[in-house]
Amino acid sequence: MDFRTDLALERCEFLGKKETKGIEIEEFDAKKARVSRIAVTDENGEKLVGKPKGLYVTVEVAPFAQHAQFIDDSLEALVTEIRRLLPDKGSVLVAGLGNMKITPDALGPKCASMIFSTRHITGELLKETGLTGLRSVSSFSTGVTGDTGAQAGEILKGLTDTLKPDAVITVDALAARSVSRLGNTVQMCSTGIVPGSGVGNARQEISEKTLGVPVIAVGVPTVVDAATLIADCSDQDDTLLPDEMRMMMVTPREIDLMIERAAKLTALAINCALQPEISPEDMLILTA
Amino acid sequence: MDFRTDLALERCEFLGKKETKGIEIEEFDAKKARVSRIAVTDENGEKLVGKPKGLYVTVEVAPFAQHAQFIDDSLEALVTEIRRLLPDKGSVLVAGLGNMKITPDALGPKCASMIFSTRHITGELLKETGLTGLRSVSSFSTGVTGDTGAQAGEILKGLTDTLKPDAVITVDALAARSVSRLGNTVQMCSTGIVPGSGVGNARQEISEKTLGVPVIAVGVPTVVDAATLIADCSDQDDTLLPDEMRMMMVTPREIDLMIERAAKLTALAINCALQPEISPEDMLILTA
Amino acid sequence: MDFRTDLALERCEFLGKKETKGIEIEEFDAKKARVSRIAVTDENGEKLVGKPKGLYVTVEVAPFAQHAQFIDDSLEALVTEIRRLLPDKGSVLVAGLGNMKITPDALGPKCASMIFSTRHITGELLKETGLTGLRSVSSFSTGVTGDTGAQAGEILKGLTDTLKPDAVITVDALAARSVSRLGNTVQMCSTGIVPGSGVGNARQEISEKTLGVPVIAVGVPTVVDAATLIADCSDQDDTLLPDEMRMMMVTPREIDLMIERAAKLTALAINCALQPEISPEDMLILTA
Amino acid sequence: MDFRTDLALERCEFLGKKETKGIEIEEFDAKKARVSRIAVTDENGEKLVGKPKGLYVTVEVAPFAQHAQFIDDSLEALVTEIRRLLPDKGSVLVAGLGNMKITPDALGPKCASMIFSTRHITGELLKETGLTGLRSVSSFSTGVTGDTGAQAGEILKGLTDTLKPDAVITVDALAARSVSRLGNTVQMCSTGIVPGSGVGNARQEISEKTLGVPVIAVGVPTVVDAATLIADCSDQDDTLLPDEMRMMMVTPREIDLMIERAAKLTALAINCALQPEISPEDMLILTA
Repeated sequence: MDFRTDLALERCEFLGKKETKGIEIEEFDAKKARVSRIAVTDENGEKLVGKPKGLYVTVEVAPFAQHAQFIDDSLEALVTEIRRLLPDKGSVLVAGLGNMKITPDALGPKCASMIFSTRHITGELLKETGLTGLRSVSSFSTGVTGDTGAQAGEILKGLTDTLKPDAVITVDALAARSVSRLGNTVQMCSTGIVPGSGVGNARQEISEKTLGVPVIAVGVPTVVDAATLIADCSDQDDTLLPDEMRMMMVTPREIDLMIERAAKLTALAINCALQPEISPEDMLILTA
Repeated sequence: MDFRTDLALERCEFLGKKETKGIEIEEFDAKKARVSRIAVTDENGEKLVGKPKGLYVTVEVAPFAQHAQFIDDSLEALVTEIRRLLPDKGSVLVAGLGNMKITPDALGPKCASMIFSTRHITGELLKETGLTGLRSVSSFSTGVTGDTGAQAGEILKGLTDTLKPDAVITVDALAARSVSRLGNTVQMCSTGIVPGSGVGNARQEISEKTLGVPVIAVGVPTVVDAATLIADCSDQDDTLLPDEMRMMMVTPREIDLMIERAAKLTALAINCALQPEISPEDMLILTA
Repeated sequence: MDFRTDLALERCEFLGKKETKGIEIEEFDAKKARVSRIAVTDENGEKLVGKPKGLYVTVEVAPFAQHAQFIDDSLEALVTEIRRLLPDKGSVLVAGLGNMKITPDALGPKCASMIFSTRHITGELLKETGLTGLRSVSSFSTGVTGDTGAQAGEILKGLTDTLKPDAVITVDALAARSVSRLGNTVQMCSTGIVPGSGVGNARQEISEKTLGVPVIAVGVPTVVDAATLIADCSDQDDTLLPDEMRMMMVTPREIDLMIERAAKLTALAINCALQPEISPEDMLILTA
Repeated sequence: MDFRTDLALERCEFLGKKETKGIEIEEFDAKKARVSRIAVTDENGEKLVGKPKGLYVTVEVAPFAQHAQFIDDSLEALVTEIRRLLPDKGSVLVAGLGNMKITPDALGPKCASMIFSTRHITGELLKETGLTGLRSVSSFSTGVTGDTGAQAGEILKGLTDTLKPDAVITVDALAARSVSRLGNTVQMCSTGIVPGSGVGNARQEISEKTLGVPVIAVGVPTVVDAATLIADCSDQDDTLLPDEMRMMMVTPREIDLMIERAAKLTALAINCALQPEISPEDMLILTA
């Protein structure tokens, strides 16, 4: 397994997609969306999938770039799956990871900027809204280490210690193995972000272990490594590729539009999962 | 004193600018820049100036919007004054305050994005740079409460507890009383940001008291309240103005360019104050 | 009349708003919108209003900045009034005037970027759309002379000679006399843009005379000159104001949001006026 | 030759890079830059290279993304080669082609926005500058057909008919065959933009034949087609690739930074080629 992917589903496909000791797979169609729920249940599963014990859900939806209509069956499936992973109640911090200045990595910050934050809506301000059951939500982008001098995990540690949320949702761009996964897939998992989960991914762990509260990671595959693509298409050993190739990525031509739409859809899904009292139509207007 | 200003200098001008018990003023020309150092030394001074005991320095420079050449005498004066307020050594967190989506309030975030962060440059990475005396710097934008759900002060509390800087520099857009202050003035102070320092400013205190380390506040006046302008020009009582006027601000026509340049100049001044080993020319290239 | 305004309605208000020889005024409520139609009918009217013979329509709507819901009664009034000024059929060129890099002047370019251009949708491409009655529309931003080296009027002359539209719609930011006009007003007129129509406006004429086809000008007041505000509030002679004041403008605090919304609303109104076959809901999705 | 490239140099490399009837090649090092001048001189050359008779110059420079210092030997080589292709004197229109909203295609519009336009600097305004020999320059971005409803060629026809430049320079992003060409190459040619010059390029011809004045095309390769990359790395017939692969492109990870720098460098080179009286240092400040 020398190709890079952040998707548990692609790891399982590579294994032949059959259930085995330590891996349980449930797949079904939720109207127009296709849902795959993978449970990694023991160390054998961890080793095979390359990810820690927990739940990994993939929702395949209509292509984001042709998806100017956000409120449909796909949204419903996303909302349902996010709610299944989240604690029933309590405050939530939504954290956008990634680099605003690199288009395919800008998903996290763009999504975070569209989260409906409510933590400051209290007292008189709350009465004015007429809403009684608002869940307390804060949101933030961690920036990237090269710009801030700090790792995303350090920043989130500081913010969770101070804001004391009951759960954290991270949003991030992912790498896939196959170009057919780009622009139509959302992955959610219960284990946060753990180094080594995708090859080539040296980030600090962001998980319940490091933050002290459950961490749900929402991700969208936006690139395929060029080296992975070539290795995949040509059965070449990617260790033989020239160095410059390792700096190359493969994206759809409409990557800018795809990121805009993916950020808007994931933000809407998270917002609706967190605030069941507000309709998707009203949520779109509130966050416009 | 019913007009709004965030500048200690304008408060003193209103008082007739003479020294008095509790207020010491030193003014001089540093080549092309004009420097005013105001020390508020006791409670009488605090009451007169409307700001806590500490140092308030104003540097008047060539108009930012005509100032595409950043490396000149003005820069030198800014660097000197920032260094006088900062601890001699130790790590620093630079925090941009304000709203990226409101042009005259975007100074803080824009400046923070141009800070030369070095906290992560250690070990091998440091050896590669060939620099031996890099001061540890991290930088961050706090966002605004309406977007994040958290106050800037809360976020900075979390970040200072985790990143443990020895000092914090905040950067922020200010309001002036006089339009002649816009686009050519930088204020620095040793007291951080304290509510009530400018009328109409309801922010949470960000200071050594709340963060536990010295807080130097760097600010640039970018707007005059329309109500202040009218009251000032017409000797009208501004409490008689219609409500809609209170939502209006006065800015130069070239406000977008002015903010770009002011952010670039203050970032360069802070960067050079923190890294004396690096020349301004090299710093401009490093942060381009 | 030494104050600056681009609104015919404010000129008439200054005259006492009564009809007189050469000026006919019709005012009515169109559900939530207030419509004023002013006809300048002879040279006496031209002299009084300071604008050439023709129709000047103002539609007052709900404040743009609180107006995340675009499809409502206001839209209907705008669509109706634009259609009244436009030729019944034939191709149209929509031209955004103004400076993308100056927030309150960015209305024209932002609106033009949201126009639903159809001129290239022909043959097979048209069949695919399933639409039979698409009006041919092109759109463009002229940029500003300081950037392009050419005047907006020259550029539009070149484009109309080549693209041969049957009418031109210009979209532009305007200056008002009163801050109460900002953020809630759209003016449309049949005479294009003619120098001297607002004091201080030295642009080249863009009209049927110069382009050879009818020119409808759509404008939104986004600023009040600081000099006009002061003169108005204090009965001061604005010629006595210091020079720096002439470079100042007054805008709402939420100017960035206001411009976004105003551009989206005017674009939607123009798009719906041009393509009656497409519903406002579908148009919003097509141009998202 | 079933791979896609817009670079004459890559076509020649594919042919074995030897001169032959109809193709003359001159290569040399200009300090740190590598210059290749290819002359296509007859129909045989046209057939082999797949481009019309004329001059095709490639300058290989230091990688843009590591190139924050713009004024160096590479700039000198670019300026020299642009001047060789340009008429000695007369006015010039610089046209940015491509899509501002698609990162790797945004080179043209970004470059055009940094061109030093002078056509409007006449009379008093010229005297103020103290410059006597300013060449008349205008600049413009054509937008893309899907947004404007018009082809770039139509818009340039309208602008050249009205502004009457003596030559046109187009700036555009290109596709290369090899990833090693991305981020370090500028191509200039004397023949404008002619359909079929790169496979998959269906644009309308923009050349002396259509515009009536010489057209110099400046281009920077920013992408490799994924299909070309795979065909190249695996000797697969790219006609067998799945359809979704045809919508994929390969770019460097730092594509956003690369485009910024490439646009700045090409704009500086064009500006300096057009205004020999102004030093590169002053030009950088004038266009900052």
